[in-house]
Amino acid sequence: MMRINIDRLMADLDSLGRIGSTGDGGVTRLAFSVEDVAGRRWFCDRVREAGLELRQDGAGNLSAVLSSDDPGAPTLLAGSHLDTVPHGGRFDGSLGVLAALEALRTLKERGVRLPVHLEAISFSDEEGTLLGELGSLALAGTLTEQTLGQARGGKGALEEGLGRLGLSCETVLAASRPAKSIAAYVELHIEQGCRLEQESLDLGVVRSIVGIRSARLRFKGLAGHAGTLPLAERRDALWGAAAMVSRARDRVLERFSPGVLNFGDLQVSPGAFNIVPEEALLTLEFRHESEEILDSMQQELFDLARQVAQEYRLELSLEPASRCPAAPSSEWVMRAIEGAADALELRHRRLLSFAGHDAQAIGVMAPSAMIFVPCVDGISHNPRELCHRQDIENGANAVLHTLHRLAAPSIAGGMG
Amino acid sequence: MMRINIDRLMADLDSLGRIGSTGDGGVTRLAFSVEDVAGRRWFCDRVREAGLELRQDGAGNLSAVLSSDDPGAPTLLAGSHLDTVPHGGRFDGSLGVLAALEALRTLKERGVRLPVHLEAISFSDEEGTLLGELGSLALAGTLTEQTLGQARGGKGALEEGLGRLGLSCETVLAASRPAKSIAAYVELHIEQGCRLEQESLDLGVVRSIVGIRSARLRFKGLAGHAGTLPLAERRDALWGAAAMVSRARDRVLERFSPGVLNFGDLQVSPGAFNIVPEEALLTLEFRHESEEILDSMQQELFDLARQVAQEYRLELSLEPASRCPAAPSSEWVMRAIEGAADALELRHRRLLSFAGHDAQAIGVMAPSAMIFVPCVDGISHNPRELCHRQDIENGANAVLHTLHRLAAPSIAGGMG
Repeated sequence: MMRINIDRLMADLDSLGRIGSTGDGGVTRLAFSVEDVAGRRWFCDRVREAGLELRQDGAGNLSAVLSSDDPGAPTLLAGSHLDTVPHGGRFDGSLGVLAALEALRTLKERGVRLPVHLEAISFSDEEGTLLGELGSLALAGTLTEQTLGQARGGKGALEEGLGRLGLSCETVLAASRPAKSIAAYVELHIEQGCRLEQESLDLGVVRSIVGIRSARLRFKGLAGHAGTLPLAERRDALWGAAAMVSRARDRVLERFSPGVLNFGDLQVSPGAFNIVPEEALLTLEFRHESEEILDSMQQELFDLARQVAQEYRLELSLEPASRCPAAPSSEWVMRAIEGAADALELRHRRLLSFAGHDAQAIGVMAPSAMIFVPCVDGISHNPRELCHRQDIENGANAVLHTLHRLAAPSIAGGMG
Repeated sequence: MMRINIDRLMADLDSLGRIGSTGDGGVTRLAFSVEDVAGRRWFCDRVREAGLELRQDGAGNLSAVLSSDDPGAPTLLAGSHLDTVPHGGRFDGSLGVLAALEALRTLKERGVRLPVHLEAISFSDEEGTLLGELGSLALAGTLTEQTLGQARGGKGALEEGLGRLGLSCETVLAASRPAKSIAAYVELHIEQGCRLEQESLDLGVVRSIVGIRSARLRFKGLAGHAGTLPLAERRDALWGAAAMVSRARDRVLERFSPGVLNFGDLQVSPGAFNIVPEEALLTLEFRHESEEILDSMQQELFDLARQVAQEYRLELSLEPASRCPAAPSSEWVMRAIEGAADALELRHRRLLSFAGHDAQAIGVMAPSAMIFVPCVDGISHNPRELCHRQDIENGANAVLHTLHRLAAPSIAGGMG
């Protein structure tokens, strides 16, 4: 049975992990940063080296293409992203891109001819340094002028980032592809949780990706002298933000499990020892697999923020930052993954993804599903993120055979 | 009866308020910043213009001196500071320096000859951009190498700031003066509270300045993916910091009134929407008029932080940042202020200062007291800080006559 070259794939992961290395096993390769540009250049070199066709679209998505003999054939996509969060891990995203590249290299070496084009893709800014899942949303054609205007840091920051690649908001909007051009999308990723590890499973087949919403909560009080203003008279913005953090966590734990929330940042101004905080800017993100429950969560969390603001005599502005709907997987693609896993004698089950992924954006336009492999202790977005060699090999072989099954009707029993 | 020139003093306040103006009535003139250097240059010009002697010591304290005929006479000091907090007001500090300058100009114009030297002084970095009350502590000789090493931002930042004035930590330590060289110190300041305004009083005579302690609390948890890590398994540093803010405020309100506390800043890292906060750095400051109660407050607040850290499974480091003891005023100087106020027919009472001031540092070496004037709604450390012309005039005249009484035993009944 055909297998990927695990030594070559491990060497690629090591080599890429040195670009933006934080020296402690971690990586900082923020979208459109100097490190990201270096990572992109490294990927282009690997694609050329493999004799595959290199493409970059208007959103900065980078692809290695193994063309079919039929120029009008649809494309089977596989991939993930090369960007990371600040001080993140070496596997989140990179594994999916490099495994897809390795699958294409393997098929090319074996001279396998398929009735579809194969494309290993790295999507731009999945992590949302400027706009989460930018590349995959652009390809799916679901980005709008308005969405681009809501980029974190403003549209100016986005234009600046894109400019470093010679791109612009216009080229991003022009990067969409017709739905019929994409036959399916498969994405390999570390689980970023402990379920596979705890159940001693080799693979997870993602049945749905949770929806994610985020917002900025700005509490505004009145700056004042930290000595002379009696406590009872203060309108301290940090008091409101602190109450919000505690109460919102309790509320989600009580009423919305297994839904989650995160207050990832809190900025206080003016921010001096001896000044009562005037403003506290809190970033909120929350996730659930049901759109209906996400609506309820949003309602309750926003109401809670309003209550807290009133209680501490603060002004409040609530600004939704991004919204990514829950995305169920394609039954056809899940079955192809399960068939490949069975053939490879890998233990698997279906599960839910609590992390957002590019598959969520692509799922809107094309049949999509994801393959999870275990990562040690479920640790991710952290320099200690680790995926064992055996799991990397299992995942990459699953990508290879899933693509093969999806592409070759004689094995998989039909394209649809 | 002799009076200061209020038109000239108002013109000075207006002119100085344009240096570092934030455009909304506020001022940012952080110690040793470009704006501070411009403010210092402006002050030097005023001193020369008035025909007074200009001096700068090793701590960057700037003085206008009106010498006595007796070169061996002690010095009567009056002043405050020209630096501000970020986005602060136009009167905090500046009023005391410019009123002292105006008092000296008035005495010089009248040809008044006194048996002591008179010195209008602006102390460096009262607000603590790098080291609170740096200039007055240096003059009092209570600074040590160790204190300098605890400067906010580190000793390097302090050396850099001093370097802009051609000074160094060595010159700062050499700026101390013998206690017998200072006869007394008087400082005019806005109240930064509402008591005078609410009681329709013209002046407050400060009987004691509260002690101030500050500390940095660093809560450390574990970064993680904001979707995949179940809430119950998180070690979120912000959860601990938020609980600390709320509980510490409640504790101080319940057990230590009228003592106060402030959490002026909170910094979260890595600080992304989708990463569970790994570290939360909280700045704490608390104030009380009794050193014994300050000890209890510190014990209880630090214990509370340890409890919170344990509850949220976080590591905690507690780092005291600065400590300024409570400072009772000199009875002799307070009586001189009260005599001057009575002669000027101003209504006054004694009160407590909840703000730290240079008088606190100078009080250790020389008889000291402060004069408060009302400021509108008690607002300070804020662009809306406002002191009415009449209160400015009252305060400056009180400084003039307090100096005259302290200097001329025949009026005040002896030097003490």
